[in-house]
Order: sequence, then structure tokens, then C-alpha cells
Amino acid sequence: MKFSIQKDRFAQSVQDVLKAISSRTTIPILTGIKIDAGTEGIKLTGSDSDISIESFIPKEEEEILLADIKQTGSVVLNARFFNEIVKKLPSDTIEIEVISSFQTVIRSGQAEFNLNGLDPEEYPHLPRIEEEEVFTLPTDLLKAMVRQTVFAVSTSETRPILTGVNWRVENGVLSCIATDSHRLALRQAAVETMSGAEYNVVIPGKSLSELSKILDDSQDVVEIVITENQVLFRAKHLLFFSRLLEGNYPDTSRLIPTDSKTKLELNAKEFLQAIDRASLLAREGRNNVVKLSMIGEEMIEISSNSPEIGKVTEQVKSHAVEGEELKISFSAKYMMDALKALEGTEINIQFAGAMRPFVIRPQHDDSTLQLILPVRTY
Amino acid sequence: MKFSIQKDRFAQSVQDVLKAISSRTTIPILTGIKIDAGTEGIKLTGSDSDISIESFIPKEEEEILLADIKQTGSVVLNARFFNEIVKKLPSDTIEIEVISSFQTVIRSGQAEFNLNGLDPEEYPHLPRIEEEEVFTLPTDLLKAMVRQTVFAVSTSETRPILTGVNWRVENGVLSCIATDSHRLALRQAAVETMSGAEYNVVIPGKSLSELSKILDDSQDVVEIVITENQVLFRAKHLLFFSRLLEGNYPDTSRLIPTDSKTKLELNAKEFLQAIDRASLLAREGRNNVVKLSMIGEEMIEISSNSPEIGKVTEQVKSHAVEGEELKISFSAKYMMDALKALEGTEINIQFAGAMRPFVIRPQHDDSTLQLILPVRTY
Repeated sequence: MKFSIQKDRFAQSVQDVLKAISSRTTIPILTGIKIDAGTEGIKLTGSDSDISIESFIPKEEEEILLADIKQTGSVVLNARFFNEIVKKLPSDTIEIEVISSFQTVIRSGQAEFNLNGLDPEEYPHLPRIEEEEVFTLPTDLLKAMVRQTVFAVSTSETRPILTGVNWRVENGVLSCIATDSHRLALRQAAVETMSGAEYNVVIPGKSLSELSKILDDSQDVVEIVITENQVLFRAKHLLFFSRLLEGNYPDTSRLIPTDSKTKLELNAKEFLQAIDRASLLAREGRNNVVKLSMIGEEMIEISSNSPEIGKVTEQVKSHAVEGEELKISFSAKYMMDALKALEGTEINIQFAGAMRPFVIRPQHDDSTLQLILPVRTY
Repeated sequence: MKFSIQKDRFAQSVQDVLKAISSRTTIPILTGIKIDAGTEGIKLTGSDSDISIESFIPKEEEEILLADIKQTGSVVLNARFFNEIVKKLPSDTIEIEVISSFQTVIRSGQAEFNLNGLDPEEYPHLPRIEEEEVFTLPTDLLKAMVRQTVFAVSTSETRPILTGVNWRVENGVLSCIATDSHRLALRQAAVETMSGAEYNVVIPGKSLSELSKILDDSQDVVEIVITENQVLFRAKHLLFFSRLLEGNYPDTSRLIPTDSKTKLELNAKEFLQAIDRASLLAREGRNNVVKLSMIGEEMIEISSNSPEIGKVTEQVKSHAVEGEELKISFSAKYMMDALKALEGTEINIQFAGAMRPFVIRPQHDDSTLQLILPVRTY
């Protein structure tokens, strides 16, 4: 194997595949990054066996030479060192050559690194996915759907299925749902499927977070292939594989109340900042709880207190207060997470009583909602 | 006590005095920030008994009203909460009022915080310094002198005196010296003293680091008062007190070799980057050691290796190599620290032999030097 390659592009690809590589793996070869020099370009692979990422650099793009492949071949190099070395190389081009028994020389400017490589034959094969069914999403929409749901997955392994996000495709609509059983996030969007295929799978939250970090903010489409135990996201020059979680995701549709006893309209930013201030003192308590109560037709009050430190109250204008008067307590953190996830400047909150879950939606947008279970304090 | 004050200016003062406050103090009142509203303005004080910081906000500055003091008085408030609250308040002005038994109300916009305060009478008095002798330095020069020396103090408490920087004033020259016994940093500058006073004190490295963070990058003068066990830095509206370390600082003048067997002239940035790359592999070893050897009249080679990972070699152009041929090993970290501390693009290194300390100086600048002890590997 011998090639020279443009440094910045190569460094970016190394960064990307590095996101799949864990230093805590029990399989030594997976601490490495696999480099394949083929006749068409350079392929980099990283994997922790849950997530696998493949990044491809074509030898030429838009008539600009990116890589000059002198000899094809493969090697596996320690990912952590290789990444740090590539970033700090002095020249705009890098030459990489396997000289003997996986000994690899990296040359750039006057610097020459000689790394002990590993046998690429020992590197596990990535899942092979037969592409029968594909659906597509623009990259920015895919990232928004991940951002608006993934924060609500459970971080506890008590119910492993809740550490993932439930992705369902039915009647041309993709629904992404996450819940840790104290709150729930839902986002829907239309997708184009071939032959009306339907899916119901659970993707690990961690996989979706890493995917989101790698994808740029373009509107290029990402192709999504779902199989029995794997999902593949295919963007330009990038393949992202994740295993799926096994088991049945709970039916969350019954959780979302359909009736409403009290309704508020609020400016999202003002409300978020008031909750943030109230949470400063709430944080000292065990559960970070703030109280909300109505004090008139167009005003609510947010309050919290910590006996040792003090208390805080703040009035927030509501554009409309409808229905029964209400006092309710909830986690400031969950509310802030939910408000940050919603797009739009004005939000509605619908309460079905002080002990029932309540629903937060952006005004004039039915594609997304956030649900929070109240805390019993009154 | 009752006053209203401009938020941003107040928040900055709170931030400044917070640097003296430790949450791990054993004296509960020192977790607080002391607020004094006087007729001329608002004074904030923070202290961990080693460092004390006082920040003053005049009620008026350049004909702009900063504070409106309705009633003078004092209170002590929990520093951590108070800082977070002030930063997040909604309006441009804050009103602070002590209502009864140190209960303090903070109002801004629609938000109202009610904090449990502490009795200001219990707050320790700051050291009283009789200003007989003062010397002055421009703020930017003071910060440079700290930056170029403080990193070299010892982090071990084995010899507590070495955790400080030795400040000496003799014949109108201030010398700042720090050493951890493996390397030494020295910076000198002319100062104006009254009546030719001389000093020889040791200031804790931590105090100097915190001082540096608070001072802006102006050329305004800082007044420095040294007493038997305290040093006071006085800038505009800011007093910074630090205790001095007790004991005698070792005589470091004999450590600096006066003879030179080999001399190099190098570009500081090129040399630093080559050391940085070589250190990538050196870090795996216990001591982060790189080797330097001469390979001709105008070239040196930097190398390091880690048996498990691999090795690296790099050639760096030297504008002049004079004297005996040399192979020497040293800590990459110490060399990088030293090179970052030196200003100037070209540096000289003078070696007195592979086993003797060597000295790095900027070209054409005798006010500063960095000394490093080599590591025995050849």
C-alpha cells in the first residue's frame, strides 16, 4: 500500500470514522482505523461493533486530484495516535506507505513517523446489507428529527429498550419517539418509501447522536436502509451502520392525553429563561422541581425554593390562559430540554390536570410534541 | 442596604472577586461574597484567606450613573448562587435590598430572588497595608512577567517554597524566577521604586495565575506594595492581596551555566511544532522524552520512539550550529512550555554538555531565559 493524499480532507475523514472507535473495546483490532487504498480512492473504517463508519475519499473530485494511489493495499493503525499525528503533520500532503509486515511510514514535510500496524485481514467485516428497501430524508431534516427526540432517551439500563429511539414508518410518515418514562419526545415527518414498506425499529440513542455529529447541515438526501438487526445511513462518501435494539418498544400512543383542561400560550424564549432562573435554586433540592401557577388571565408565576439558600418567583406573561386554574410542579431540566428541542417562538401547553402528563407543542405545528409528567408537591 | 446597579458592570465585579473564593473552604462565611454599599459606591469582597480580592464600582463614572445607592449597608451572600443569579437576571438593572436579618431581595425585570444572607460583621477583615513603599509596572508587562515564569513553579508540596515565584527587586530591576528543580524560568524588567528599596519575596504561583486572569491587557500601571507577609496589587477599582510564602528561596544564580560548548539558532515556531509532533509518541513512555542530535552544520534531528506504537524522526533547519557535536534528551513538555513562554521568532539554545542544564533565550533579548535539565538516555 502506498499513496499520497491531501491532508485536510484525509484528517476530516479520520475524525469522522474515529467517532465509531472506542478506546475501551475488548477487541484490540477495533482500537485501530482500517485504511484501504483501492484503485478508485481511499476508504477508512472505524467500528466499535455497535456502530461502524466508513468514509471514502475518491482519488479525484470535481477534477481536483485528492489522492495519488501508487500501490493498493490495506493496513490497520492505532486510531488515537494516527488521528493526532495526521492533525499535526506539517505539510499539505501526506504520504502513507506500508513497508513490511504492516510497518507503516507516514511522511509529511521533514517529519517521518513509523507506526506498528496490524493485519487488516483480522479486521471484522462490516454488515452486508442487501438494499431492497430504501427511504430518504434531507440531511438537515434528519438531524432535526434526531435533535428533537434523542435527548429524551433513558440513560438507565434498567429497561434497555428505552435507551433507543423508536423509529416507525407507517403510511409514508416517519415517527421518531423517545421516552425515559418521565417525559416523551415525538417528531414526525413525511418520507418517501418504495412500495409502501412499513418499519418499527429501535435505534440506540448513542448511534443517532454520533450520526448527527458527522452529518453536515446540507439538504443533500441521506438514504436509509433498515434490516432486521441493522440500520444503514448512506450520505455522500459516508456509510454509517448501527445495530438495532432488540425487543418491543412500549406503545406510547396511550400516554399522550387527548383532553385538555387548561391551556397556555407562551413565548418560548421568555418562558425558558424564567424556568432557567427558577432552576438555579431548584437544583439544590433533590429533584430540580419548579412550580407553575396561574395568577390571572394573562399571567403565570414560576417559583422554586431551597430552604437553605432562598426562594425565587417570577411572573411570565401568557398570551392566553384558558380553562381551569392550575398549580403544577415539574422538573426544570425536563422543561428546559423540551423547550430547547421545539422550534418556533410561540408554544402551547395543554394540561389535563395537576397529576396528569402535559403536552407542549409549537403553535401551528403538529409534527412535534414534548410530554412531561408532573411531580407531586402540592 | 438598598441600591440599584447596572447589571453588566456588577456581574463583571462579581466574577472578579469570585476568583478568590473557594467552595472547599473550612470557614463557612468565606463561601460568601461581601457586598458593601457606601456613599461613594459598591464594594465587593471575596477571599479564601490566602488571596483576597476587592472590586469597587463607583456610583458614577465619566458622568454615567452606575449605581443608585438608596441606603448604605452590608451583607454576605452565597457566592456561587449569587454569581449564577446575577448572570441570568433578565433586565439591564438589578435592585438589591436587605429587608430583615440579612434576608436579601434581588429584583430585575419580573424576577425576584430572596436569598438568605449572612452577617457581614462575621466576615474577616482584609489585611491592612501601610503604604510606605510602592513600585509600579504597566499591566501588560506585569501579565507577561507572570505568564513567562509561573508555569515553571513546582506542583508538589515536597518543597512548598518552590510552589511560588521568587520576586526580587535590586538596583531598580525586578527579577521573577520560578523553578521546580527540573527547569527554571527567569524574567527581568526595570521598575521604578521609591528611595531604592530592595525586596526578596516568594509569591504563591496560584495567586499570580489568578491575578493575571483578572487584569485586563491595558498599559495602565499597577501599584505593588510588598510587606513582610503580604503583597498587594492595586489596579483601577481593584485590590488584589496575596499572602507570601514563608522560607528562603534557593539561590538559583549558580544553576545557570555561564559557559557554552554548543550553540543553536532556531526558528521558535518550527522547532516547537517538531517537538510537539515528536512528543505524540513520547507521551506513551513514562517521561515524555525526545532526543535532539546534530546532523550537519545547519540541521538538527528531533526523534522519539515508543516500542509499542512506533517512532518518529524529523529534521529541523538551524540557522547556525556552533561548537561540539551533541546528542541530548529532554522532556518534550518542558521544552514546549519554555518555547511558548518566550516571545520572539528566533531563539538561541546554549548547551554546556549532554549532562548539563541548557539555556534557551530569544535572540537579541537578555531580559528572559528558560533553563531545562536534560534526561539521561544516551
